[in-house]
Amino acid sequence: IFICKGSIFLQYMKVQDRHFETIWLKSGDPETIQVIDQRFLPFDFKIEDIATAEDMYTAIREMHVRGAPLIGIAGAFGLYLALLNIADHDEVDSRVRKAAVMLKSARPTAVNLAWAVDRVLLEVEKAGNIEEKKEKALETARQIIDEERISCLKIGEYGLKIIEEISRSKRGQTVNILTHCNAGWLACIDYGTATAPVYLAHDRGIKVHVVVDETRPRNQGARLTCWELQQHGVPYTLIVDNAGGHMMQRNMIDLVIVGSDRVSPYGDVVNKIGTYLKALAARDNHIPFYAALPSSSIDWNLQEGAYETPIEERDGHEVRHMEGMVNECYTDMLIVSENTPVANFGFDITPARLVTGLITEKGIAGANYKSIMKLFPEKNKNLFP
Amino acid sequence: IFICKGSIFLQYMKVQDRHFETIWLKSGDPETIQVIDQRFLPFDFKIEDIATAEDMYTAIREMHVRGAPLIGIAGAFGLYLALLNIADHDEVDSRVRKAAVMLKSARPTAVNLAWAVDRVLLEVEKAGNIEEKKEKALETARQIIDEERISCLKIGEYGLKIIEEISRSKRGQTVNILTHCNAGWLACIDYGTATAPVYLAHDRGIKVHVVVDETRPRNQGARLTCWELQQHGVPYTLIVDNAGGHMMQRNMIDLVIVGSDRVSPYGDVVNKIGTYLKALAARDNHIPFYAALPSSSIDWNLQEGAYETPIEERDGHEVRHMEGMVNECYTDMLIVSENTPVANFGFDITPARLVTGLITEKGIAGANYKSIMKLFPEKNKNLFP
Repeated sequence: IFICKGSIFLQYMKVQDRHFETIWLKSGDPETIQVIDQRFLPFDFKIEDIATAEDMYTAIREMHVRGAPLIGIAGAFGLYLALLNIADHDEVDSRVRKAAVMLKSARPTAVNLAWAVDRVLLEVEKAGNIEEKKEKALETARQIIDEERISCLKIGEYGLKIIEEISRSKRGQTVNILTHCNAGWLACIDYGTATAPVYLAHDRGIKVHVVVDETRPRNQGARLTCWELQQHGVPYTLIVDNAGGHMMQRNMIDLVIVGSDRVSPYGDVVNKIGTYLKALAARDNHIPFYAALPSSSIDWNLQEGAYETPIEERDGHEVRHMEGMVNECYTDMLIVSENTPVANFGFDITPARLVTGLITEKGIAGANYKSIMKLFPEKNKNLFP
Repeated sequence: IFICKGSIFLQYMKVQDRHFETIWLKSGDPETIQVIDQRFLPFDFKIEDIATAEDMYTAIREMHVRGAPLIGIAGAFGLYLALLNIADHDEVDSRVRKAAVMLKSARPTAVNLAWAVDRVLLEVEKAGNIEEKKEKALETARQIIDEERISCLKIGEYGLKIIEEISRSKRGQTVNILTHCNAGWLACIDYGTATAPVYLAHDRGIKVHVVVDETRPRNQGARLTCWELQQHGVPYTLIVDNAGGHMMQRNMIDLVIVGSDRVSPYGDVVNKIGTYLKALAARDNHIPFYAALPSSSIDWNLQEGAYETPIEERDGHEVRHMEGMVNECYTDMLIVSENTPVANFGFDITPARLVTGLITEKGIAGANYKSIMKLFPEKNKNLFP
């Protein structure tokens, strides 16, 4: 049991009673990174060794690891691995920069990836010789891990207040929380973003029930969020992405919390495709809609509307095929005609007007510039506000 | 080529260049009904023989046939089959009534099923001896088929005007039409409801492109609508249900047309789960949202809001499993943990305020009582309007 400031208790996230994080330095081998290869969950719990920046690039791109905070950390470790594998000391800086460009190109939408890689790169460039650079890269990656872990816990504490208030107004009846995709500990290091308030509430004895969107096409809700919640003992129900609106109309949802891949300083939320539809339904049914995110997910350069965000388009194979278990074997299945033309957008943008608030490690902000800048005054570019 | 009044051309719907409807009396065996067993499309085109009311009940319930107009017709034929199998002449009426109750209970949401079964039942009860009853049942079922076919064609003609207007305003550029689920000829007899205007436009040389929602959990969009459009040569793109809102935000959709399982005289549209979310997104992006339906889908007894509609809840197996092709074999796959708790609502209600209009066989009505009653004055219960 982890004890946080302010005496809020939250158990570490566990897999069959053993504490796991999503990414770590291999025990006894500081030149290898280990990750949970999330592609096979919930059917198989696989751990993957990653020893090169190229393999880290692949792990991010092919979504062995995914989730905005986690791919940031994976990118940071990737740069560390790149340094380990540079033999020629003369070209260190140019080769590290090339590795950074490669790693950042693995996935375009979550701003955390570029943010974390650039942060490590800056420290590496400042450091003297290659040994110092390696040390600094590892240290920075670990710093980001610590920060993200604490951010998630803080998000949990702030978000808990929202759940407590709804629980009180329902006189202790179950609070039904809809979430989309996986913004759980599997997307971070521990606790998660959208799930942190839920885990905290559950651990404190508040009755919560999570309604989990399947989240086509990769089914992160059905495969990852359900698995996480089940491991932690939180009651949940899986629904198809189509069903959330209907359940809101029927008063079966009290609160929506999602994660985010990129947030504008104006409160626009870029998140997994389909988030916008749930935000519309929440607004139509007067249900609070929150995004939970560490400040590493805020892109301070975005304009109002977040339209400059590169929206990832992925291969149609993801839509045409489905993976799962046939006769206890993990199998790939064709679910439509082989040559079906497909468009496969990975993310959408929920405009700030549909967002009740942003739950961050610094507190809860309204989805507007003024409110966000109040939490992060150091980011304010306006000298005369 | 079929020539309709007013010289609008629409080709019959074909499967590999042979004209098929969805249900018919078996050639040379007037005591057997044949249907396309839609469960295996697009992988396998199977025709099923149905000889008893009980088997028809199963075919409707287990969705060998589906789609509001089609299950009405299937129910009508089911009553005919019930009559064929009644040996004891004394109990004809009570046994037919029992069969009607059974058939109507196969699926609760689409009003067409009860409407068609009751219509056949009324004729059967009026008829004299059992031979007359059989004849009358068959005749009425065939009448309904003819009416629904013509209704679809009429819906096509009226809906065509909407597409033509958008095409003109886009100076002949492709009109992008989003549809949800399958409201094509597979849901009817021929032409379809939501698809009829699209087929007509395509056959007249107007550039159309259909964006097809996958439609979880049963994937009728991905499996049936894509297949239909492909057979007819209409350009289409498959997307996951999550993606429609994003594409509307990006101006990639000009028009939404869906079918309906039940419409209130106030213009509320009950349709496949997820329809409401697309209606919200269409409204948010100023995109016209139409439901296309024959008047057999209007439930004249519904109050404003359509809240009395029984919303079908189906087994969670549909969400936990997926069917498709593995090594060229049609296979069932588990896609989540076996014991995942699931809620599986089949339909939702789109309130009239989100509906631009209803495309019916009598013309296009606004989604309000006054406009609907103008098209169907015989249904007006207000003597002094």
